[in-house]
Amino acid sequence: MSYDLVTFGETMLRLSPPNHQRLEQASSLDLHVGGSELNAAVAASRLGLQVAYVSRLTENPLGRLIRNKTREHGIDTSHIAWTAEDRVGTYYMEFGASPRPNAVIYDRAHSAIAGIQPGDIDWGTVFRNTKLFYTSGITPALSTSAAAATKEAVQAAQGAGVKVCVDLNYRARLWSQAEARAVMTDIANSTDILFATEEDTERVFGITADSYEDVAKRLAQTFELELVAITLRENPSVWKNVWTAIVYDAANDTVYRAPTFEIEVVDRVGSGDSFVGGFLAGLLEGGAELGVCLGVGLSALKQTLPGDVCFATRDEVDRVLEGGGLRIVR
Amino acid sequence: MSYDLVTFGETMLRLSPPNHQRLEQASSLDLHVGGSELNAAVAASRLGLQVAYVSRLTENPLGRLIRNKTREHGIDTSHIAWTAEDRVGTYYMEFGASPRPNAVIYDRAHSAIAGIQPGDIDWGTVFRNTKLFYTSGITPALSTSAAAATKEAVQAAQGAGVKVCVDLNYRARLWSQAEARAVMTDIANSTDILFATEEDTERVFGITADSYEDVAKRLAQTFELELVAITLRENPSVWKNVWTAIVYDAANDTVYRAPTFEIEVVDRVGSGDSFVGGFLAGLLEGGAELGVCLGVGLSALKQTLPGDVCFATRDEVDRVLEGGGLRIVR
Amino acid sequence: MSYDLVTFGETMLRLSPPNHQRLEQASSLDLHVGGSELNAAVAASRLGLQVAYVSRLTENPLGRLIRNKTREHGIDTSHIAWTAEDRVGTYYMEFGASPRPNAVIYDRAHSAIAGIQPGDIDWGTVFRNTKLFYTSGITPALSTSAAAATKEAVQAAQGAGVKVCVDLNYRARLWSQAEARAVMTDIANSTDILFATEEDTERVFGITADSYEDVAKRLAQTFELELVAITLRENPSVWKNVWTAIVYDAANDTVYRAPTFEIEVVDRVGSGDSFVGGFLAGLLEGGAELGVCLGVGLSALKQTLPGDVCFATRDEVDRVLEGGGLRIVR
Amino acid sequence: MSYDLVTFGETMLRLSPPNHQRLEQASSLDLHVGGSELNAAVAASRLGLQVAYVSRLTENPLGRLIRNKTREHGIDTSHIAWTAEDRVGTYYMEFGASPRPNAVIYDRAHSAIAGIQPGDIDWGTVFRNTKLFYTSGITPALSTSAAAATKEAVQAAQGAGVKVCVDLNYRARLWSQAEARAVMTDIANSTDILFATEEDTERVFGITADSYEDVAKRLAQTFELELVAITLRENPSVWKNVWTAIVYDAANDTVYRAPTFEIEVVDRVGSGDSFVGGFLAGLLEGGAELGVCLGVGLSALKQTLPGDVCFATRDEVDRVLEGGGLRIVR
Amino acid sequence: MSYDLVTFGETMLRLSPPNHQRLEQASSLDLHVGGSELNAAVAASRLGLQVAYVSRLTENPLGRLIRNKTREHGIDTSHIAWTAEDRVGTYYMEFGASPRPNAVIYDRAHSAIAGIQPGDIDWGTVFRNTKLFYTSGITPALSTSAAAATKEAVQAAQGAGVKVCVDLNYRARLWSQAEARAVMTDIANSTDILFATEEDTERVFGITADSYEDVAKRLAQTFELELVAITLRENPSVWKNVWTAIVYDAANDTVYRAPTFEIEVVDRVGSGDSFVGGFLAGLLEGGAELGVCLGVGLSALKQTLPGDVCFATRDEVDRVLEGGGLRIVR
Amino acid sequence: MSYDLVTFGETMLRLSPPNHQRLEQASSLDLHVGGSELNAAVAASRLGLQVAYVSRLTENPLGRLIRNKTREHGIDTSHIAWTAEDRVGTYYMEFGASPRPNAVIYDRAHSAIAGIQPGDIDWGTVFRNTKLFYTSGITPALSTSAAAATKEAVQAAQGAGVKVCVDLNYRARLWSQAEARAVMTDIANSTDILFATEEDTERVFGITADSYEDVAKRLAQTFELELVAITLRENPSVWKNVWTAIVYDAANDTVYRAPTFEIEVVDRVGSGDSFVGGFLAGLLEGGAELGVCLGVGLSALKQTLPGDVCFATRDEVDRVLEGGGLRIVR
Repeated sequence: MSYDLVTFGETMLRLSPPNHQRLEQASSLDLHVGGSELNAAVAASRLGLQVAYVSRLTENPLGRLIRNKTREHGIDTSHIAWTAEDRVGTYYMEFGASPRPNAVIYDRAHSAIAGIQPGDIDWGTVFRNTKLFYTSGITPALSTSAAAATKEAVQAAQGAGVKVCVDLNYRARLWSQAEARAVMTDIANSTDILFATEEDTERVFGITADSYEDVAKRLAQTFELELVAITLRENPSVWKNVWTAIVYDAANDTVYRAPTFEIEVVDRVGSGDSFVGGFLAGLLEGGAELGVCLGVGLSALKQTLPGDVCFATRDEVDRVLEGGGLRIVR
Repeated sequence: MSYDLVTFGETMLRLSPPNHQRLEQASSLDLHVGGSELNAAVAASRLGLQVAYVSRLTENPLGRLIRNKTREHGIDTSHIAWTAEDRVGTYYMEFGASPRPNAVIYDRAHSAIAGIQPGDIDWGTVFRNTKLFYTSGITPALSTSAAAATKEAVQAAQGAGVKVCVDLNYRARLWSQAEARAVMTDIANSTDILFATEEDTERVFGITADSYEDVAKRLAQTFELELVAITLRENPSVWKNVWTAIVYDAANDTVYRAPTFEIEVVDRVGSGDSFVGGFLAGLLEGGAELGVCLGVGLSALKQTLPGDVCFATRDEVDRVLEGGGLRIVR
Repeated sequence: MSYDLVTFGETMLRLSPPNHQRLEQASSLDLHVGGSELNAAVAASRLGLQVAYVSRLTENPLGRLIRNKTREHGIDTSHIAWTAEDRVGTYYMEFGASPRPNAVIYDRAHSAIAGIQPGDIDWGTVFRNTKLFYTSGITPALSTSAAAATKEAVQAAQGAGVKVCVDLNYRARLWSQAEARAVMTDIANSTDILFATEEDTERVFGITADSYEDVAKRLAQTFELELVAITLRENPSVWKNVWTAIVYDAANDTVYRAPTFEIEVVDRVGSGDSFVGGFLAGLLEGGAELGVCLGVGLSALKQTLPGDVCFATRDEVDRVLEGGGLRIVR
Repeated sequence: MSYDLVTFGETMLRLSPPNHQRLEQASSLDLHVGGSELNAAVAASRLGLQVAYVSRLTENPLGRLIRNKTREHGIDTSHIAWTAEDRVGTYYMEFGASPRPNAVIYDRAHSAIAGIQPGDIDWGTVFRNTKLFYTSGITPALSTSAAAATKEAVQAAQGAGVKVCVDLNYRARLWSQAEARAVMTDIANSTDILFATEEDTERVFGITADSYEDVAKRLAQTFELELVAITLRENPSVWKNVWTAIVYDAANDTVYRAPTFEIEVVDRVGSGDSFVGGFLAGLLEGGAELGVCLGVGLSALKQTLPGDVCFATRDEVDRVLEGGGLRIVR
Repeated sequence: MSYDLVTFGETMLRLSPPNHQRLEQASSLDLHVGGSELNAAVAASRLGLQVAYVSRLTENPLGRLIRNKTREHGIDTSHIAWTAEDRVGTYYMEFGASPRPNAVIYDRAHSAIAGIQPGDIDWGTVFRNTKLFYTSGITPALSTSAAAATKEAVQAAQGAGVKVCVDLNYRARLWSQAEARAVMTDIANSTDILFATEEDTERVFGITADSYEDVAKRLAQTFELELVAITLRENPSVWKNVWTAIVYDAANDTVYRAPTFEIEVVDRVGSGDSFVGGFLAGLLEGGAELGVCLGVGLSALKQTLPGDVCFATRDEVDRVLEGGGLRIVR
Repeated sequence: MSYDLVTFGETMLRLSPPNHQRLEQASSLDLHVGGSELNAAVAASRLGLQVAYVSRLTENPLGRLIRNKTREHGIDTSHIAWTAEDRVGTYYMEFGASPRPNAVIYDRAHSAIAGIQPGDIDWGTVFRNTKLFYTSGITPALSTSAAAATKEAVQAAQGAGVKVCVDLNYRARLWSQAEARAVMTDIANSTDILFATEEDTERVFGITADSYEDVAKRLAQTFELELVAITLRENPSVWKNVWTAIVYDAANDTVYRAPTFEIEVVDRVGSGDSFVGGFLAGLLEGGAELGVCLGVGLSALKQTLPGDVCFATRDEVDRVLEGGGLRIVR
């Protein structure tokens, strides 16, 4: 098999009470699956890339559910490492309304992917014919062995001539800023394309600047990156957000911008990941400028539908990028 | 029986995923029934008119479902033509959120009403004691025989002294602008009261003007109409719309306006049809000025509840027209 | 047992169609329980007070459901009077969208609490070791005997040195303004802490003033009250409200204000009651100024979740009062 | 209008927890409407009779819901008396499983129909062109005035040459056996066709016999009835019942029997009423023997679907009477 | 790619009212996808075969939904022919209870697969490295061109040395027995492995015999088949069925039998197809005897879960074949 | 506080797909809470005992949910130990149908209760005024420290003169038979009342006998027990079970038997625990013979409703014990 993109990380079950209930009120929970690297894989696949998703999963109905939902999008799951041990991570999500923000409770400790060891994945085979590799700062944060396995993957990608793409995705519940900085500095030094927010850049690397553009440039300089993409969100309310992104192309010292969207938010989880997948699809198709546009268009659509992954088509992305209007599409 | 209003056209099953899901995500679909002429019939009936709905339906649970839901509103269904052949048309509806518009997928080809033939309905009996007849530009667009049957109905109405009311309702999926113009010009020449939007007027008749009022006047002049009503919608977002209408009364060359409503949109499908039904009820009760107000008030309420038809009362319409406020009604 | 707060009144079953349906459309109804005095009890209990709820209930699954849902929040139900007679009151709630307001249909006549008689509750035992007693203007409005029982409770509280807290809560469906004035004047004269809105103050006591603050002062003067709290709501739309409150402290002639919240409204029912419970919890903990802040914070959160009672924590109230922002809480 | 059948009685909202939950567990309730006389009206209408349903209803969404659901089946509702007072009766239903029987909690006191007075319905108009009148022993049990109104209706039917059909339907919660006997003896003396069970016959009239057939004969002799139908149910378990009926034809002293059905019970409520409606439809079409067969076939089908009324067709009734088998009907 | 099994046919959307409702009662419909050849493909894939599913689908959300649900099970969809024309077939399913059988209403005319033409699929590529090909008697029944396309596929399989497997699956709504016999005789003559029921054998080929075993033998002789499998169902009630199968192996003139299962039926649709897939998986793994056992075990499990396809594992099949008992599996 | 019964153990969230779905099919999961010791506590509380439930819980919405659901039944939760660490255990439940048994997937490792240490609970206070203490063999199986904490509790109970009641409840997923035997022998030697099944007795203690009665006697002799209760279940199918129990009273060497029930199984989880709670309530009220009857009656009802705990009343238990029949209770 040849892949445009291989992603590597954890997918969890997401359990969320319907209709803005609190967990303490719930008598049923909606079930989705999601995780940064799966979400990005789906986004890229929806826009036409050949994608493989790599993880470690427990062989039980919950692990199979995650594999099935991955395959549903045409993503290769043949490199997943299966185990009879450990568990499938879960997280609980409460949907808010101003002034109550959305809230997430993670129950992901001791998952199969946290138990991954270097050597569990045959990266040589995976990367035989692959263009891009993507992981996020969540994967190495899961455990010491997961950090080692992530570094192994990054090095294997580098060695195989696969471009390394990383989203900082700092999670304070998983590790301290100091721990993150140690590991992520190492990884960033092997990275080609970095995805970040202004806030994560400061928390992980202590890097600040006067503007988003300068944050991107400083990141590019610090780690000798090809491309740095930064997503920008404003939250006038929980149900209405403003969303866009920029990408800094170090090769020609240029910043590309995407249109800005006013979003009626159904479910904002996974929008950064959909941006990643959309960006990488656009990058392979037409370069960084197309990438940032497809990424923002796809991730804007993501926020209008429930679940962590984006059920949209290239036609629909093109339509919103062209300002297609809000009349009923018949 | 005597009828204030007889409507004629297609009613479909509507299947829509709940909770802003895409169809590709759905595991169940909400079921409603709707169609321009049924929706208008319900609106008029809710405001007190004696109404009959005429169509052609397949004799199976789906056809009976449509008949039942029609009768639920006190509408006469005794003139429906039943067949063992053909099928019940369906359409799929995805509810959007900015920047993703609502989307409709029609699956209506080969329906029983598309298979209707002139002579299938005994219009002489239907119109024996009837004041108004309503159909829309969708009915003749369904098939060549449906176009012929629609013309037959319009001529029968004219012959029986029943006022002919038509909503342009151009559907590009059903016919070309050229086809529509040929048929609708013919029908408009037999029409007394026309409902339109600025956009449909241009697409069907090529008529444009500087203002809504002038569009209405030009339509009235072109086809010697008594009344032309035009609904106006602005879409600042998918969940918030602005809605009103005007009516041009040719007899006294006057434009009547309804109040404008800011609408929190639960389901905008069928609002134009509810306007039609509300307008005709107001027209019979007190003239065109009352008509445009009841039509806009009722159709504003329509957009705040799910489904194609409007479950509101005259009291509620009066209350919103009087600016009744948004406190809890206890 | 010792109680920080005892509340006394009616709890009803609430039956509401999901998804903004009208009752005429519904095939299932969401079930909640609520009533002013239960809602206030839950709010106070969530913020740490020891609370008892007193009522009269029919011994059947519906009465037990109300008791269970009260106990779920750690509220003492041991003083409830049980009867085999009468019924459990219900109310039907339709959720609106602009321009359609929320609507409530009460079906509460002949309830067990309406049949309560003086002497049914052993107030001596209830108040043995109690700090605050709360009831609203709804309880005496339920029936003549309920009015007598309410007065009995108020007098027993006064006699036991328990502070009497009352929310005017005028309900035009239950009694006339004249009836309300007669009874509520009597009760207000025994009240220490009064909760009101500007509108109810005028309807019940005929008291008006130029500002909310002056309304509060006039109430305090008229009835020799310690504290008067007034909640303020603006309704730019059904789904977006603005909410705050003030409290007038007669002892030091001072008005304390809470922050103002823009609220995305999931369910506004019970927000005034959550304010009461939050206020009383803050009052006992740190005085009226803390009270008005906790009351507004908690009741703002109430409006973002379904049901009549507020499932929030002190941490969450503190967070919104500190302007915690709308990012996902992970 | 001319009617084959007019029925008169109470329709309630039915609220039942889904999935065999107890009421104390429920967070939503399924909503149906039902009542003996509505259920019988629907059954007769489904089998082709022209039917009117008469009652007294409160003018609010709940009353309109009942009217709408009646009209849905093509039943005339124009003789219903509307009032702004009183309430719509409700009942709560818990679905059991062996050894837990189904359980019903009535909340029907003070309903609009309980408040009906003689003179509220213009029976002269109703019965102008009517063949059969049906009510049950529930209607006169609702209140003293309802008993008077029922007698008025029975006498008006008799006077107009309309056959009087009555189901004993004894409800111990509504009246004592002594009260029932007094009123029902009076009514039975004006009755032409009586529906009963062995148990109700004993409770209401104190009549017992060695066999169902003899019970029917004794009833016929005592009250000079034309026809007496008796339904027979065995309950080997809650989910599996055995069901049939007989009818005694006094004119030719003959007992007709229907086939016996093993029923997988989805919802047995209303099966006796569906038998009544099916029987009367068969009676008018082909006599008592056809009646008892259609009645049993239709009411057997009723028990396989949720709700109080039977959504089945004549074709389906014929099919089960012919022993149509249990393969998938494609 | 190499495939153990390629299947070819129609997949429809299935829309079914929940909770034993009739369609006339429904306000939502459960959504599944299914069709004989998809169901068989899933069954085989669940038991470990490499499977491709071939069809023709309309490129819209409904067509994509079918492709996604196919991929979810790890089935190759790369050979599906996509079109912008035609429609996705649907069928409506009512779940019964004795004496009411399950009922299906097909709405499948004019589907994309009915519009397939010989040449639309590149069978040479599909069959390059394939062991088994499966289609059913439904595919050629869809249209004349579909019959031609089916014959083309069968011949291509034969030419490529792929074993041809066919289930008679006679559908009276699609074609007459005479039409079926003409086409299926032709196909059967190119078939290696035939699946049938006694009833379909008589209806399609007019072949009867004294026993199931003899029916199988006569089929094998008539068409020179390697293997003939016959499934056997008894319906003591709608919710309880008895299920087993035999296979006749012509090479050694032996009949192999599977265990018989008493089944509590959740959803029996697709059980024959699951038998096919399970049989073929067992056949490749260990021969016809293992095949008939895995087929019956898997299809028994199918009937205990909702939907057309079987979510079970090999472990579970082994467990029921070993008589694993009905205690909770912890 | 004084308690009739204190129970100690783990409560988990239970997540189960609705409508017999497999987990791999689910898009939502029903949410319940349950665990042997909570279930028994609820059963006893429903029958009138004063009950406290002791555990260790994580302070988050999931831990609070468990506490709330415990309080809902009037059970004291004031002795629960709260922690910010660890997690709330969950389990997944698939509802089967013959031949597919119900299946449970535990995800309970690393829970707060597994992390409990001796000393975390102030048993001296808990047992100050307590009659009975109950725990099951699950609690010590959770972890080494949980085993130590369980022994501490048992010894504290013994020391305080509280009768120790234990259900063997062997869970092979949690510990080996050898581990169980070591710990449970120790605990059984301090036990007064033991609950067991024949199978668990053999697996944990290696004790077998010719009859249930002899198993009970041998247990009583081996561990010097006062009472030994054994529940008996037959599984003719997943949806229909036969259920009863016996108790052996060592003091008078007598076996008491309860009636046997044919059960239509809605949800059998927790029936053994409901037996325990019902037995203990009956024991305190009237001795072991009443205990075994109430225990079986209550646990028979448990199996007819969803969830792990039994929402039934003493009246209902009496009714089934008296053979109350299966007619609708009105």
